[in-house]
Amino acid sequence: MARNGTLQARGTGSGEEPARRPRRRTPRPAAIRDPKGTQARILDAATEEFARFGLGGARVDRIAVRAGANKRMLYYYFGDKDRLFLAVLEHAYAGIRSAEQALHLLDTPPVAAVARLVEFTWRYYLEHPEFLTLLNSENLHRARHLKRSKQIRATNSPLIATLREVLRRGEAERLFRRGVDPLQLYISIAGLAYFYLSNNHTLSQVFDRDLAAPGAREDRLAHMTELVTGSLTNRGN
Amino acid sequence: MARNGTLQARGTGSGEEPARRPRRRTPRPAAIRDPKGTQARILDAATEEFARFGLGGARVDRIAVRAGANKRMLYYYFGDKDRLFLAVLEHAYAGIRSAEQALHLLDTPPVAAVARLVEFTWRYYLEHPEFLTLLNSENLHRARHLKRSKQIRATNSPLIATLREVLRRGEAERLFRRGVDPLQLYISIAGLAYFYLSNNHTLSQVFDRDLAAPGAREDRLAHMTELVTGSLTNRGN
Repeated sequence: MARNGTLQARGTGSGEEPARRPRRRTPRPAAIRDPKGTQARILDAATEEFARFGLGGARVDRIAVRAGANKRMLYYYFGDKDRLFLAVLEHAYAGIRSAEQALHLLDTPPVAAVARLVEFTWRYYLEHPEFLTLLNSENLHRARHLKRSKQIRATNSPLIATLREVLRRGEAERLFRRGVDPLQLYISIAGLAYFYLSNNHTLSQVFDRDLAAPGAREDRLAHMTELVTGSLTNRGN
Repeated sequence: MARNGTLQARGTGSGEEPARRPRRRTPRPAAIRDPKGTQARILDAATEEFARFGLGGARVDRIAVRAGANKRMLYYYFGDKDRLFLAVLEHAYAGIRSAEQALHLLDTPPVAAVARLVEFTWRYYLEHPEFLTLLNSENLHRARHLKRSKQIRATNSPLIATLREVLRRGEAERLFRRGVDPLQLYISIAGLAYFYLSNNHTLSQVFDRDLAAPGAREDRLAHMTELVTGSLTNRGN
C-alpha cells in the first residue's frame, strides 16, 4: 500500500506535458521512497534467513536480495549482522507478546485465562516454527545479543505482570492454590509446548509414535491444558 | 582392569629368563589389547566432540586423538561419522534409561515415584548437559540417525511401561485422576526441565532473573514437582 501511494504521487502533477513521457530524474530506490516498508522487508527476510541457517550460516547478501534492498542500505538501517540478528529477535518477541495482549486475559475468568494462554502458546509455536529456531540460535550464543537490547525486558515483562494478576484473582476467588510464581508458571507453559515441538523428531523415534500427527497434537494440547489447570486448581484436601 | 589383566598376562610365563628383559615383539597397540576399553574411550571422546561442535562441526581426527586411537581403528569399530554419531546417541539414551531403572520406581508409592522421576530427570539434565546438546543436534537432522537404529525403541520403551504401571497403581489407589497417557506425561516431565535449561540464557535475559542461580534451580524443581504431582492428584470435586 505504501508503495502504491508513492507510485501514484510520482505519476501525478505532470499535466503540462500530457503527450510526452515525464522528464525522469534518477529513480529513487524503493528503500528511500519507503524506508519503513524496506526495513520491514529486511526484517522478514532476515528472520527467514537466520531461522534457516542460524547466525553463523546466514548470509547478509541473501537477506538483501530477498528484501529487494542492497547491502549498504541494510547496514545503514541495522548496523552489522549481529545487530540485525538482535533486531530480528526483538521483532520476534514483540510479535508473540503483542499477540498475547490480544487475548485479553484480564477480561477472562482465571481458569479460562490460563487455558487460553496454554492454547495460544501451543498454536503460536506451531504457526511460528522460526520463533523456536531463533531462540535455539540465541541460546547457543548464550543470549549475547539480547544482553545488549535496551527494550527486550520492557517487551516481555507485561506478560508476567498479567499472569501474576490472573493468579492473584484465582487465589482470591479460591480457585487456585497459593504461592505459584508467575514466571515459573509461564516457563512451564512454554516448555510443555516448546519441547514437544523442538524434540518431536527424536521423541517420535525413540517412543515409536508419530507425535506430529494431527491427532497427537490435539492430544498434546488437551494434556498440557489439564496438567496446568489441574495443578493450579488443586487446592489440597 | 581389562588392561591390567592383559599386561599381567603378557608379563607372566617368562620364568626361564629371569635376568634378561623378555624378548619383545612389535608392541600390540592398546586398541587391540583392549578392544572394549578402546571402544568406550572412542564413545566418550565422540560424545564430547559431538556435544561441543555438533554433527557438522565435529572432527573424527580430534575424536581419534582424544581417544588414543587412530582413525582407521575408529572406522573399523564404528563405520563412518554418521554411524559413530548414532552410537553416541544410543549410548546416551542407554545411560539415562539405565540410571532411571536404578530408581526402582515400582518399589515406590505412586506419588513419590512420580516426584522421584521429576527430580531425577532434573538432576540428570543438570549433570549431563551434553545429553541435551546431542538431542538438539539430532533434531536438527530430523532424527535421521535414530531412524536407522535397531535398538533405540527397546532401550526407551521400558520407561513408558514403568510409568504406565505407576499411573495404573495411582488410579487403583484413588490417588491419581484417570486417563493420563504415560508418554504425554513423560514428555511433560522432560520438557519442564529441558526447556528451562536449554533456553536458560534467553529466559534469564528477557525476564530479567538469573535462572541459573542455585536458588532459582531449587525453586524450579519445587515448581515442577508441584505442577506434575498436583495435576495427577487433582481428581476433581
